Order: sequence, then structure tokens, then C-alpha cells
Amino acid sequence: MLTNDQLSKWDRENFFHPSTHLAQHARGETPSRVIKTAHGVHIVDRDGTELLDAFAGLYCVNVGYGRQEIAEAIADQARELAYYHSYVGHGTEASITLAKMVLDRAPDHMSKVYFGQSGSDANETNIKLIWYYNNILGRPEKKKIISRQRGYHGSGLMTGSLTGLEAFQKKFDLPLDRVLHTEAPYYYRRDDLGMTEEAFVADCVTKLEALIETEGADTIAAFIGEPVLGTGGIVPPPAGYWEAIQKVLNKHDILLVADEVVTGFGRLGTMFGSEHYGLKPDLITIAKGLTSAYAPLSGSIVSEKMWKVLEQGTDENGPIGHGWTYSAHPIGAAAGVANLKMLDDLKLIENAGRVGKYFNDAMKDALGDHPNVGDIRGEGMMCAVEFVKDRDSRTFFDPEDKTGYALAAALLSNGVIGRAMPQGDILGFAPPFCLTTQEADTVVDATAKAVKSVLG
Amino acid sequence: MLTNDQLSKWDRENFFHPSTHLAQHARGETPSRVIKTAHGVHIVDRDGTELLDAFAGLYCVNVGYGRQEIAEAIADQARELAYYHSYVGHGTEASITLAKMVLDRAPDHMSKVYFGQSGSDANETNIKLIWYYNNILGRPEKKKIISRQRGYHGSGLMTGSLTGLEAFQKKFDLPLDRVLHTEAPYYYRRDDLGMTEEAFVADCVTKLEALIETEGADTIAAFIGEPVLGTGGIVPPPAGYWEAIQKVLNKHDILLVADEVVTGFGRLGTMFGSEHYGLKPDLITIAKGLTSAYAPLSGSIVSEKMWKVLEQGTDENGPIGHGWTYSAHPIGAAAGVANLKMLDDLKLIENAGRVGKYFNDAMKDALGDHPNVGDIRGEGMMCAVEFVKDRDSRTFFDPEDKTGYALAAALLSNGVIGRAMPQGDILGFAPPFCLTTQEADTVVDATAKAVKSVLG
Repeated sequence: MLTNDQLSKWDRENFFHPSTHLAQHARGETPSRVIKTAHGVHIVDRDGTELLDAFAGLYCVNVGYGRQEIAEAIADQARELAYYHSYVGHGTEASITLAKMVLDRAPDHMSKVYFGQSGSDANETNIKLIWYYNNILGRPEKKKIISRQRGYHGSGLMTGSLTGLEAFQKKFDLPLDRVLHTEAPYYYRRDDLGMTEEAFVADCVTKLEALIETEGADTIAAFIGEPVLGTGGIVPPPAGYWEAIQKVLNKHDILLVADEVVTGFGRLGTMFGSEHYGLKPDLITIAKGLTSAYAPLSGSIVSEKMWKVLEQGTDENGPIGHGWTYSAHPIGAAAGVANLKMLDDLKLIENAGRVGKYFNDAMKDALGDHPNVGDIRGEGMMCAVEFVKDRDSRTFFDPEDKTGYALAAALLSNGVIGRAMPQGDILGFAPPFCLTTQEADTVVDATAKAVKSVLG
Repeated sequence: MLTNDQLSKWDRENFFHPSTHLAQHARGETPSRVIKTAHGVHIVDRDGTELLDAFAGLYCVNVGYGRQEIAEAIADQARELAYYHSYVGHGTEASITLAKMVLDRAPDHMSKVYFGQSGSDANETNIKLIWYYNNILGRPEKKKIISRQRGYHGSGLMTGSLTGLEAFQKKFDLPLDRVLHTEAPYYYRRDDLGMTEEAFVADCVTKLEALIETEGADTIAAFIGEPVLGTGGIVPPPAGYWEAIQKVLNKHDILLVADEVVTGFGRLGTMFGSEHYGLKPDLITIAKGLTSAYAPLSGSIVSEKMWKVLEQGTDENGPIGHGWTYSAHPIGAAAGVANLKMLDDLKLIENAGRVGKYFNDAMKDALGDHPNVGDIRGEGMMCAVEFVKDRDSRTFFDPEDKTGYALAAALLSNGVIGRAMPQGDILGFAPPFCLTTQEADTVVDATAKAVKSVLG
């Protein structure tokens, strides 16, 4: 077996890691960590350190680590047929079965699923389909897409443009044309502290209406949003937000894309965020929860309304010119089938709702009164704690102080992985759905201890 | 087990296939095929039909189907650790080992590899890195990317813009801004039939120079090309092409991206197309051959020259804002390690060169004199036969006749899978590297028979 030192050297010499300070990593100034194995909510590195992963990887290992049922489904598929493409009507038992399982679980008005590999490529597919749709309908000017500030929809060129976070756009010339951003539904960060939640929702609607008015509704094709803001800070929407937003979209014939990469398949304690908040999307983006990350697989679920136009498009123009070599990859499909079955068999979505509520309540009990804790919020198996310099005046810390990162580091030294969200001093949690109440207590205790050590 | 009828019904009701006529498929007017298992160069569907796959999936199953060594590597990884992310310096033994194996095989001046899931997302990463690079160097205007007509670089929004094929752009509003196209190095389709190969290369250079002159070299960041045109028609470059093109690029400080998704890891009988044709790229795109498609994995190999600027960028701006959840996915990494080892152990790249030559020669012997065969060309384990209405005047068939598709269908009825390339009446072949001379003969015989049945 390779020694850790050897691996570390190879790593720094050859491996370009995502979201990493490349120079510091290459110079050996930042830690590297080689993960060896994992089980349940715990990961173990090659030095033998065991950590409770309260972020489920990147909120994706929803069923928990080390599930041998999924591993064996992958192994069986790899032995029988690791790959064949899905172009021109080809499929496998796994990919066809998974397509049916996805549609069985999706809202009734959805019709078909296109499989990709990542949430980013699924949103890429969505934009292509939206533009195609309006071209077929003879509305070539109706193409712009409205996203929200702090939305996260991918890291590609167009998908990173949809994303409304500075870290993913700076120095990359993003956002590109055709993408617009409107107010984030982030009540805690409202401009006017005196505003009620109801007034804030009305303000979000007014801003959206104004943007549509300025640009012209006949230039706007779609609105994309996560049911709960994810990487932008883990922010459930204020009451009534989605209902009010959808009224505006319907009025102007603007499609709705529900980006359910994080919320799809149970993270909110319900199958989809769309059902949780009463959304009626035209496209649903799925990825992480589809396979619990056991293999790369994503999807775009297409509504019947859009599908009919896509059919018309191919009747008029021939086969659709879109495809990834690994669309509906058999290994991913096999992992997806086993994963969705496991969610059902072990009632893990119910557990996400129940223990998620326990976890959020416990976090509020432990930290709700801390003078540097401005907000504790969550839904299902998602929770965020937002830190401020002064709670009453909602004065934020200087971003240069990197308070959020210091808190995440302190938490890690207590054996628990949370995530410092990239814009603001926010500790985010999104544990596997199999979290127990005892494990929830462990996370809360470690967080309280970290807060005490950093902020007193 | 599910019956075929049941699967077919589920398929048509739920599954949105890539590159498919959606309406005909949903209406049941086009065949569907459910692939069950595969071994060597053969695939088997659920009706028991066995086919010789002379296109290796989508030129990706390079080591051949059913390799239990790779299946077991995937199985072992799935049991031990199916997933952890590679953000912020995290890795696994498999991903770090694979990074080293890739750099050991890449040209000496390459430095690091960033892992993604598909060729499309790797080219997406490349564009982001190119723009970042010129921003860090203080050249914010130097951003346009030159691709070639008939190039294939992906199916996303920007990557589909790089692609120079109508089928992937029509009705999708592509290409987007910042992408330019220049002459395809496709000697057989030269405008002036009297032109020598040397004069044609000079003409390609003149056209590139003229484009750069018109746009301004200070606006052009990069040139992207496949060493051998792939989906555009399987076209090896004319002699001296790459040497002449690189001189122009160097003169104007334009980066070179070698898209080796098809050619990387042995398809030309050499490790990379770059070494085969003397390219010195700044970025190399890899995907299919990296894992032989046993699991989704791609990569962007970055030169030392670019890497130094990326390091400077993160020293100035902090961690790089780019990442896919499934970057360096452990299952893909394990498949990659086993796949590259197998290429070495079984000397499959040597076989690709040797049997590829035999295959190309045999195709020429069998069909070189046919009055409807205009060109037979290839390199390594790639071969294309281009059909024309009249050979002497090089008169093409009416595209509406879909002669290429008819030939591919006839070939399929003879038990062999070739591919009707999308632009032109071209039958393409790209078999697994393990092809034997006997199997090559089978493909050639089946092709000759198909040609006779369709064209006489």
C-alpha cells in the first residue's frame, strides 16, 4: 500500500483540486486529507481520524456512507454491463427502471427525464431545452433567464452565470449574457430591518415585476430557483414566497425551473421541495440525492407541457441535437435504483423530516441566545447558523476576519464536519438522512463548543 | 425479471433519450434496444441479439466490454468508499494515484489534472481556465476561442458553441458569443478539387491568419482542435497541418487546447494524439479513454505555463471558484486506474496501432474501387468510409436521401455496429483496441455486403 507521504507528494505535484487555493496547496501550506473509508454518518481518513460528516459530503450522501446494497448493485452492473450509450432509443434495464421510478416520484404533471452526470450539466440541459422550446413556439426573443442573487445552479459558464455568488464568478467573466438576477428570498438579510416577512415577500415580487417590466416579458423565458437557497446560505423561503412568485411567472408566461439538486429525493422530509412549497415547475433539476453520490448521475425532469413542444420540435427538425456520452450511464442508473429503493425501505425521508426537526430545535436551544448568533434556520435535514458581530443591530463581521471559516475549523477539531458557506459567516449543516437524535446532539454539542472557543 | 414489453413501455413513457427523434420514439415508431450484457467487442441485447460493436459505444469502450478487472476495481471502491468530495485538498488513494498516472503519460510540459465527469464539462473547465488565465495576466480583452468547422467539443451551451456541426446548434441559438470557427482540415472536402494537400494546408493557415487579423490577435485567447476530427467525419489532418497551425498560434500568443477525448490514451496507436502529430498543447481534454467508459470521468490536463498563472491567480484572489460535486469521483478514479493499467498490461495501445492499420488497409482493399466510395481514411483504430454519388466529380448525395443512415442500418442488419456520422454520408468505425484481425475482417465483410445491398 502507498504511504501517506507518497500520496501527499503525488497529490501536490499532480492533482488540481476544485475550490482550492492552488498555490498554497501546491506549496504544501494547506492540509490535504486522504479519505479511506466511511460508514453511516462517519468518514475515516488514512491517518485513522474519524469525523462525523454533518454535511453528507456536499449535501449528497443522503442515505449515509457504506451502504453495501448500493455497492453490490454497482458491482453487479459493472460485471454485467458497465457501459452502453443511451442515444437513439438505447437503454438498459437499470436506466429504464430508474426513469420510471423518477417519474413515479415526481409531481404528476411531469412527463420525462433526461439523465446527465452532474447538477451543472442538468441545468445546462435545461437552458438548452428552454431556448429550443421558445424557438419551436416561434418566440425567438423570449430567451433570458432570471435567477436569484445567492442562487447556486452550477459551476460552468452558463450555469455559473445562473449562480449568484461572487466566488464562482470573479475573474471568470461571469455572468454571461441572457442571465439576470433578482432579489434573494433571504429575510434575515433584508435591507430594511423593520420590514415584516409579508412585506419582504411583497418587495421580492415588486422587484421581480420591475425587472420583467424593464426587460420586457417577451424577452424572458424562465425563472430558476432552489426551493430552499443552498450554497447561498441555506435559507428557507419566507412564508408565501413561492405562491407569490409563481403568480408573476404565470402572468407573463415564464417557465419555472425548480433546481432540486439539494432538495430532491427527501432532504426537506418530503420527496421534492416542489411539493413541500407548492411549486408547479416546468423543469426539475435533480442530481445529488438521485444516487446519494454513489455514482455520478443527474437529471432534468420535463413537464408534459414542455415535452409536447419538444416532440413537435423533433417532428419539425429531426432528432434533438443534445447528448452526453455518459447520459444514463448504467453504473449511475444501477446506483440510482438501489438508492431510491433504500430511501423507501428504510423510511429515510421520514427520518430526514423527523430528526431534521429535532436537530434544528436542538441547535436553537443550544445557540439561540448567543450574542453572536443572528439567525438559526432550516428545514428538514438542513440547518444554518448565521453569525454576526452584534445581534441587535444585525452588524455583520468584516468578511476579512473569516469568522465562518474559523468556526468551521474549530468544529472540525471537535470531530464534526460542517461547512462555512461561501458568502457570509454561516455554518451550514446537511447531514445524511440516517442521522440519529444522538448524532444530532453530538453535532450540536460540537458546534456549541466551537462557538465558545472562537467567539466566547 | 421485467419483460421486454414492460421495459419498452416504461421507456417510451418516461425516458428522454439523447440524440433521438423524441416524437417518433414516444409514439413507438422507431426501434428501442435494451442492452443486457457485453464482452470483448460484442454487445448482447435482451432479445438475445449479439452485435459486433465497431464503434466501441461512442468511441469510448477502448479496452473492450466485460473486463472483470475493472469491474472488480469499481466494486472494491464502491464497498470501501463510494464517494467523498475532492474540494479543498481532499482526495482518495484512487484519485491521487490516477492523477499521477495521467501526468506520467501526458507530454512532459503538462503539470496538473482537474477531473470532471464528461468531455463536455472538461471543455467547460478549459474555457473557464483560459479566461481566468488572461484575466490574471491583465489581458481582459483576449477571450475569444477559435474552433474549427466540424469540430466536436461537447453538447453544452459554450461547448456546443465550440462544436462546428449544425445538428448540435440548430434551434438552440448556438454558437454563443466569443466563439469563432475556421476551416476544417478536411482535404477530401476542399473547395477546389485541383488543390494539392500542401496548398490546402497553406489555405487553412491563410484563413486562420485572416480571421485573427480581422478580429485582432489581442482578442483571441485560444484555439481548440481534435488531433483527428471525430464526429465531424473521422478526418486525420493533412500532412504538416498541425505544425503550420501551431506556428500561427505561437506568433500571436494564442493558447492551444488539444481535445483528446477520442484520441487520448491510445486510439491512434500512441498514448496521445498530441505526441502523434507533434502538438504542444496548453490544455488537453480527456474523457472517454480515461476509464474506457466503465464510469464517468473526464479531465483537463494543464500545462506548467498555465498552472503557474493559476497559482498566481489564487495567491491574488483566494481559492479558485470552480468545482463539480463529482470531480474526481472515487468510482471513476478506481475505474481509471484499473483501465490505464490494463492498457499497459495487455499492450492494447500497440494493438490499436497494429490492428488499426490492418483494419484500414482491409477496408481500402475491399471498398477502395467502389464507384460510390469517395474516400477511405483513418489513423490507428479509427476509420471512415465516405460515400458519394459520383466518385470522379466528387458529387455528394442529396442529404435528404440519408444514404449514410441507410448504410449504417444495412450494416447493423449484418450484425455490425458502425456509425453514420452526422454531417455527410460517412460510415465511421472506432472499435475497441482489443479488436483481432479476424474481427476486423468481419467488420470489413459486413460493410462491403451493406454497401452492395444499398448501392449495388
